[in-house]
Amino acid sequence: MNVFFCLDVKEMYLSFKFKLSLYFDTFQSLFMKITIAQLNYHIGNFEGNLKNMLGAIEQAKKEKSDLIVFSELSTCGYPPRDFLEFEDFIIQSNQCIDALAKASKDIAIAVGAPSVNPVIEGKDLHNSGYFLADGKVLQVAHKALLPTYDIFDEYRYFEPGNEFNVVEYKGKRIALTICEDIWNVGNDNPLYTVCPMDELMPQNPDFIINLSASPFSYKQADSRLHVIKANIDKYGIPMFYVNHSGSQTEVIFDGGSVVMSPDGKVFDELPYFEECIRSYELADVLKGGIHRVQPKEKIALIHDALVLGVKDYFGKLGLKKAILGLSGGIDSAVVAVIAQRALGAENVRVLLMPSQFSSDHSINDARTLAQNLNIQYDVIQIESVYDSYIGVLAPHFAGTSFNVTEENIQARVRGMLLMAMSNKFGNILLNTSNKSEASVGYGTLYGDMAGGLSVIMDLYKMEVYELAKYMNKDGEVIPVNTITKPPSAELRPDQVDSDSLPPYEILDEILFQYIEKRQGPKEIIALGYDEKLVKRILRLVNINEFKRYQTAPALRVSPKAFGMGRRMPIVGKYLS
Amino acid sequence: MNVFFCLDVKEMYLSFKFKLSLYFDTFQSLFMKITIAQLNYHIGNFEGNLKNMLGAIEQAKKEKSDLIVFSELSTCGYPPRDFLEFEDFIIQSNQCIDALAKASKDIAIAVGAPSVNPVIEGKDLHNSGYFLADGKVLQVAHKALLPTYDIFDEYRYFEPGNEFNVVEYKGKRIALTICEDIWNVGNDNPLYTVCPMDELMPQNPDFIINLSASPFSYKQADSRLHVIKANIDKYGIPMFYVNHSGSQTEVIFDGGSVVMSPDGKVFDELPYFEECIRSYELADVLKGGIHRVQPKEKIALIHDALVLGVKDYFGKLGLKKAILGLSGGIDSAVVAVIAQRALGAENVRVLLMPSQFSSDHSINDARTLAQNLNIQYDVIQIESVYDSYIGVLAPHFAGTSFNVTEENIQARVRGMLLMAMSNKFGNILLNTSNKSEASVGYGTLYGDMAGGLSVIMDLYKMEVYELAKYMNKDGEVIPVNTITKPPSAELRPDQVDSDSLPPYEILDEILFQYIEKRQGPKEIIALGYDEKLVKRILRLVNINEFKRYQTAPALRVSPKAFGMGRRMPIVGKYLS
Repeated sequence: MNVFFCLDVKEMYLSFKFKLSLYFDTFQSLFMKITIAQLNYHIGNFEGNLKNMLGAIEQAKKEKSDLIVFSELSTCGYPPRDFLEFEDFIIQSNQCIDALAKASKDIAIAVGAPSVNPVIEGKDLHNSGYFLADGKVLQVAHKALLPTYDIFDEYRYFEPGNEFNVVEYKGKRIALTICEDIWNVGNDNPLYTVCPMDELMPQNPDFIINLSASPFSYKQADSRLHVIKANIDKYGIPMFYVNHSGSQTEVIFDGGSVVMSPDGKVFDELPYFEECIRSYELADVLKGGIHRVQPKEKIALIHDALVLGVKDYFGKLGLKKAILGLSGGIDSAVVAVIAQRALGAENVRVLLMPSQFSSDHSINDARTLAQNLNIQYDVIQIESVYDSYIGVLAPHFAGTSFNVTEENIQARVRGMLLMAMSNKFGNILLNTSNKSEASVGYGTLYGDMAGGLSVIMDLYKMEVYELAKYMNKDGEVIPVNTITKPPSAELRPDQVDSDSLPPYEILDEILFQYIEKRQGPKEIIALGYDEKLVKRILRLVNINEFKRYQTAPALRVSPKAFGMGRRMPIVGKYLS
Repeated sequence: MNVFFCLDVKEMYLSFKFKLSLYFDTFQSLFMKITIAQLNYHIGNFEGNLKNMLGAIEQAKKEKSDLIVFSELSTCGYPPRDFLEFEDFIIQSNQCIDALAKASKDIAIAVGAPSVNPVIEGKDLHNSGYFLADGKVLQVAHKALLPTYDIFDEYRYFEPGNEFNVVEYKGKRIALTICEDIWNVGNDNPLYTVCPMDELMPQNPDFIINLSASPFSYKQADSRLHVIKANIDKYGIPMFYVNHSGSQTEVIFDGGSVVMSPDGKVFDELPYFEECIRSYELADVLKGGIHRVQPKEKIALIHDALVLGVKDYFGKLGLKKAILGLSGGIDSAVVAVIAQRALGAENVRVLLMPSQFSSDHSINDARTLAQNLNIQYDVIQIESVYDSYIGVLAPHFAGTSFNVTEENIQARVRGMLLMAMSNKFGNILLNTSNKSEASVGYGTLYGDMAGGLSVIMDLYKMEVYELAKYMNKDGEVIPVNTITKPPSAELRPDQVDSDSLPPYEILDEILFQYIEKRQGPKEIIALGYDEKLVKRILRLVNINEFKRYQTAPALRVSPKAFGMGRRMPIVGKYLS
């Protein structure tokens, strides 16, 4: 036997096998089908979330998908916050994973859930991505970059992952990443010292999947595309990025999941603010050449975000009906429109509560709006209640004169009447404070600052005006007079906001610099604003922290909202 | 020349020099004097904090100390929270460090402050310990273990340190650690994967200094001694542990700084809840044999903590006067006593606001208490205001019957009257809710839940009783009837708390298991409590998150208080 011939044959055979395997790999690559499921989860509602996911899996199976990708912490919803500290909560999440694994017999499933850290040292949990296939857990990847800033508290609960392995499935090598894991690319001041994709690339992944829970702000959709593109530019493989859609108390998830091709073009972007399940042939995505993006107009996004925020707050709490006070001013008008669009006209009622200081046009404007919206309105005169307070307080107030105390009493009588209606009929009170007045404390605690949900507290006054105009784009809903007249609290004769505050054009800009941009007084003054005014406004923001502390959660639409994303001492002496 | 002789001489010389250096080292060891300064800082009050520290340095110099040790983040106060995100805030802290460095000419200074992370990757700041000597910064150590749980958010701001070097000063090798750095020792479930003292020990430190900001809970002083002893047992060198004293909004620092000898005995423990500066000869500490600890009786500690909490809340905000409603019940009685002890009788006034449902004894008990405390009290009948609400609401409430709505109106009329007095005269309203009722939502938002500071919201009802008895230990301050009668909200005829709630003995235990111990329903039922009751109570806790969200900050005295240390979703479906 000719050994050389033998070797030759063997080499030929091996070479053929190698080529064959490449061919099959390519074949498989060409024909892998991937479904992304952008769903609306409910924190702690394991049964509901599981049912929702199983429905999506059924659909993906019908579409003959090989893999379905869900989002970060899909079993339990995001952010679960301190529920994560309850063992029972983790057990229930694990039971979801077991049920999903059972469903992974003809389809692989990538899904986010907490997992128990087996190492004694460090936090007890990981924020993990499970890869389920053939009825079992094939692999678990742990999130390495744990956002701990603004509204995020992940290091509070999770130990970062420090092992990086691609998932091998049907001849593909998949880089399974979780949300922030891809966000350390493409920015000048990276927040983390490691970069998970740098660790995974030596293992030659074919594509990236990213399980996300990336909350809305009016800048977020742009930032998201920017960071996904930065990853594609750097690593040259496609990405399937799957976000949550839906609102969780103050945090709104806008969906907008993205499939990006290696050419850096957006192969697809799922709709904003709704659930959506879509499937893709990997070969098509690899081919690229398609660029499909949605418009990202700030006020339109904010409008849709707030409507979803109100809808989910009520829906997920099992509530239906809202109430609010309609003053004739712009803030309550905008909130009424949002509430009507979110809950339906039949579920929104309003109170008009004039006092001796209310102008006729205010009452008329409020009435017109209620009629335009086809919502129930009632009128309650507050004077008799106000007088009864003044009556019992008279002996104690002897020798003092009308001041902010009496103004606050009016605001509080209105707040208490709304709460009484709320208690009696089960309508949840919506708060109508805006960000400008909440910033400087131009509002009455337990009065106009009362309510279960702050709908527009993350909108500066000028943005409220823009939103009102946007609402009127297809015809007058909000009376034009409400938009054009000078804003007033109407708590004393001829009062207007500009008695106490600088024009909103200036106030809003200074607040934006301080709150969103985190600029100090020196930097803001350097922009050309009056020193005395800047210092006065910054002081007002800081000394009114105690008021904001006690207000309802505010739907977050900006990159820096009051509430869980901005944590300030009340007892501090900085800029105050 | 005999080379051997030469070598001999050289050896003798070297040997002598070595022995001499050992002798001097020992000499210096024996005579190093260390001052620890337990001070009350004010967040963001750089000028005030610096002045306070410079005063302590003067005193230490007079006592001929070699080294003075301050606490963690002493320049800016703790916790500075999101003020840390302002560049200007860091610049002001750096200016404090410069001023302190200048003062370090005849004495070394160890002091905590934020420092800028020079590395681009990672968070922008470190939580650092500065060692200042000879007029300049000798060394900076960065905190490696960043607490991010309960009230702590340090990973939000800081990059952990990962280099460990002892400070060499006057022949001593000093292990400079910051708070949590020593807390990964002596517990079964360590939170971190590194242990700074393990890294420092190979460099043979002579002693440990720890700059702390360790907040009070009624268990903390014990835990602190436990962990310090675990370090001493493991490393065998003494420790100088310096805590803050003073309250920052809801977080109270109890002081109780510790000097521990290598024999594991407490060489000294500074007083609780006050500033204190003391100096020690290192030789004496090394010698040990002394064990000086203070009593740690739970209710006494809580009493002193709450008095300090109220005092500092007012003092640091530049306020003087408080107001509260006195119902004749135990909660408002206890708060009145705390307020009077914190602010002085002349700065506390109370309102008695009876309705038709108030019992005579309630009014009498309230009056007696006010007289015992020598505080101003006024009586306002709420019936006329209540009636005026009912009057204007009548057309809208037609066909409905008296229920919780009308009860809430009474509570809210009282809240609004207190706020009116507060607004008119500048007295800050103290909230009197306890932890039991705050847990299950047995209180009225904007009514009895109103106020600027929640004084006893971290005390279960049974603890409130204990505190009341403690207050009476030297003679009756709180009328005995207030302590012995069945608790009632008095919002309808013959109402008592036990109409709506289980006995507090049981309620408090179940709440404690759920809130402090984070036990799930299964575990609590396994302790022998009725299943239906447990599920009802846990559900009440969760569905009332929206109420707690809007209440004033609560002085924290337990290991798990409502507020910044317990972060729960409002819209969640877990145990609800």
